[in-house]
Amino acid sequence: MNQRPKSDLTFLSIEQAARLLRRREISPVELVDACLERVQSLDASINAFITLTAESARRRARAAERELRRGGARSPLHGIPICLKDNFWTKGVRTTAGSKILADFVPDADSDVATRLAQAGAILLGKTNMHEFAYGITSENPHYGSVRNPWARDRISGGSSGGSAAAVATGMAFASMGTDTGGSIRIPAALCGIVGLKPTFGLVSVAGTVLLCESMDHAGPLARSVADACVVLETIAGAYPRGVARPNHRTLRRKGRKRFRLGLPEQYYFERVDSGVHAAIDAAVKTLEQLGARVERVSLPHLHESVEASTNLGLAEATSFHESQGYYPARAAEYGEDVRGRLEAGTKVRATDYLHALKVKRMLRRDFDNAFERVDAILAPASPIPAPGLGENEVEIAGEKAGVRGLLVGASRPANFTGHPALAVPCGFTPAGLPVGLQLIGPRWGEAKLLTIAYAYEKATQWHLTAATVVEAS
Amino acid sequence: MNQRPKSDLTFLSIEQAARLLRRREISPVELVDACLERVQSLDASINAFITLTAESARRRARAAERELRRGGARSPLHGIPICLKDNFWTKGVRTTAGSKILADFVPDADSDVATRLAQAGAILLGKTNMHEFAYGITSENPHYGSVRNPWARDRISGGSSGGSAAAVATGMAFASMGTDTGGSIRIPAALCGIVGLKPTFGLVSVAGTVLLCESMDHAGPLARSVADACVVLETIAGAYPRGVARPNHRTLRRKGRKRFRLGLPEQYYFERVDSGVHAAIDAAVKTLEQLGARVERVSLPHLHESVEASTNLGLAEATSFHESQGYYPARAAEYGEDVRGRLEAGTKVRATDYLHALKVKRMLRRDFDNAFERVDAILAPASPIPAPGLGENEVEIAGEKAGVRGLLVGASRPANFTGHPALAVPCGFTPAGLPVGLQLIGPRWGEAKLLTIAYAYEKATQWHLTAATVVEAS
Repeated sequence: MNQRPKSDLTFLSIEQAARLLRRREISPVELVDACLERVQSLDASINAFITLTAESARRRARAAERELRRGGARSPLHGIPICLKDNFWTKGVRTTAGSKILADFVPDADSDVATRLAQAGAILLGKTNMHEFAYGITSENPHYGSVRNPWARDRISGGSSGGSAAAVATGMAFASMGTDTGGSIRIPAALCGIVGLKPTFGLVSVAGTVLLCESMDHAGPLARSVADACVVLETIAGAYPRGVARPNHRTLRRKGRKRFRLGLPEQYYFERVDSGVHAAIDAAVKTLEQLGARVERVSLPHLHESVEASTNLGLAEATSFHESQGYYPARAAEYGEDVRGRLEAGTKVRATDYLHALKVKRMLRRDFDNAFERVDAILAPASPIPAPGLGENEVEIAGEKAGVRGLLVGASRPANFTGHPALAVPCGFTPAGLPVGLQLIGPRWGEAKLLTIAYAYEKATQWHLTAATVVEAS
Repeated sequence: MNQRPKSDLTFLSIEQAARLLRRREISPVELVDACLERVQSLDASINAFITLTAESARRRARAAERELRRGGARSPLHGIPICLKDNFWTKGVRTTAGSKILADFVPDADSDVATRLAQAGAILLGKTNMHEFAYGITSENPHYGSVRNPWARDRISGGSSGGSAAAVATGMAFASMGTDTGGSIRIPAALCGIVGLKPTFGLVSVAGTVLLCESMDHAGPLARSVADACVVLETIAGAYPRGVARPNHRTLRRKGRKRFRLGLPEQYYFERVDSGVHAAIDAAVKTLEQLGARVERVSLPHLHESVEASTNLGLAEATSFHESQGYYPARAAEYGEDVRGRLEAGTKVRATDYLHALKVKRMLRRDFDNAFERVDAILAPASPIPAPGLGENEVEIAGEKAGVRGLLVGASRPANFTGHPALAVPCGFTPAGLPVGLQLIGPRWGEAKLLTIAYAYEKATQWHLTAATVVEAS
């Protein structure tokens, strides 16, 4: 596994960069310029950004430089260039949510997450492209253009946080904040070969984001390594219940045999998946066992039933939000066709189906909670297929056509529905050279353990470094 | 105001009866027999009971007699005959919920409320008639016959706890438990001339009741006086938040000027009501002012909007429950026409309307909470019209036809929607001699204050005694 050439600042880990900043071997201005250079050279073909904030980033970098010179760093993110998905409100910086309807919307306040990151000293490089209103998983955006996969420009980046994933994977930023309502952090992370973390519901404030579905929206980091994701999470996390271990990137490096208990859910239907993903997940399971983990089957009896239920819940809440804002149906013509279709479908969900969905949600949550009495984390693919081609709505699996959206959301949305934390970590490549992501789902408020397991896996395989290398070469 | 003749045990207050029981001047067996005698002589024309538990009542009365002889009373309800609306599960005693579908349902456990009352020593006389599945406010029951108003047998008792109200008003029992989802305790209390209390949402367990609408169902007492209602509430109430005064019938009798602040909501549209109710409510307001209360106008800006919202919420939750139980649509033919129609309407409520309703609920709750920063209680009619005739679906008000259901629910359901406690207390009669009920709505967990105000009013007017007298004469 190749290390990045030391001269290439943009692929440093956050901790490495922070160390160099602390020692004044580099300056925040250099980091910002290095990232902006990558944007300059790559983003024409990737289309990760909707808005660049180059000037204010340079200004803040100079301020951070002065501050770091005077004294200690505010946090490991002090002076580190990051980006935000364009559905996080940013004061004075337009926030489109990837939509035409909000094309000229300039918030007069920051989202909670933007505030936290700024207070920690992180430097905002820009706002990233996304699926319109976060309501889709391809990031094929009719208003701002499609985000292209760093590994194959004719393929999707995944979504809805596609621009965030592509920017981080290509070294345009050290990390990005995404939102995840049905996989929108984990899916693009998996398809772009990086780490994405959807925290426990409620841990990270979504105040000041453009909502999608009130009861399933989560905000979380996309980063190039588990430790980087952990650093960001530490900055944005709200309060944990008493007695719960908080994530800490400094304690991820525990040595020795890993006595994790891991669960493979019977209901994830690995058998149906045959696209190179299967083999990579199998190999990941073996690696984890070699590290000392005990892997056993677990059962989530309501997983199947949850697909329709969470679909109904999502459709209804999304349409309800767009109706409440006066966007839909008043401005229906201004939506892309796919999002408009989903909003229309949301008007047809019956209230009784919504109430049934809430019941299924409680049952599925209990399924997970029961499983977590026996295992520390549950394993699944972050996406059962590698990145589909742009415009490809169906893929063939074992001779049968299957909808791309259903396949991608099917693996991710259960954790949105129940609120359990879940992360995607790179676990190899398909024979065609596309990245595969392993998903780890943990008990509620169990981010610390989840990150520890993912870190051990990442350290053993170093897939995350391979990923970065290949991006560079492409 | 006439006092009941001392010989007539069935119209004693609960405290009076408890005192006589304690002094062994009467026995629980006498009380039970006196009540059963009234049932015998009156219920053919009232139809308040679906199931009488005469034998077990006598058995329990004898046991209570022995226990009272040996030592102290378990509670002021020890040895007191009461009844339960037929939607409270009673172990070994059929619980029809006024339906054909549950005509042969014999629960294997008690509802929480039945358990509490039995532990307090109250004696169950029987299960009272009600609107089918509590889903209506007339108690015109196609399966068990209509409950008739004690004041005019050709009129409704109100509902859905109609049998409970009629039984208590006529001395067939000392108190009854009802449920209230849109006024089902307060409406029959008002139309039958007694006291009905819907407590704060969550204060009294509805576990073991046949549900109607999960988020608006409440259980509470119907009784002949404020103090009697208070005694029952003390027995059935769960935990109050820390620092909140619990209701206590012993402290209702505070002397001196009553410096309550009371609010008359602008939005209750007294102007539209012209049926004798208006005059009685006006007089009640004057009486309260004479007692020392300051009455001012308050505003509940979202009250109007809440009508449609709470209708949608109720329709959806009721249908959802009946679907989840396999009653509807599978056994649609076994419902009365009105209930079937409502369940059918519930299938058509959109999920987005349900979500909108939740939002309106939050806004209306804030309206009330804001008002309660200025006043101790809000005044309204418990019903804007006196008891309509059996089969009368519309009444004429100021030359316009208005639906009975909408009028009755309109005054009551706001407090179900928001969860604030509300009680109905007799406040006089229409020129035609039908009882009128004053409604007092209080801040959440404010039952103690609410009962204190109602007690002061009751004591000053003694309408509750007049009511009892007239029932006797009818």
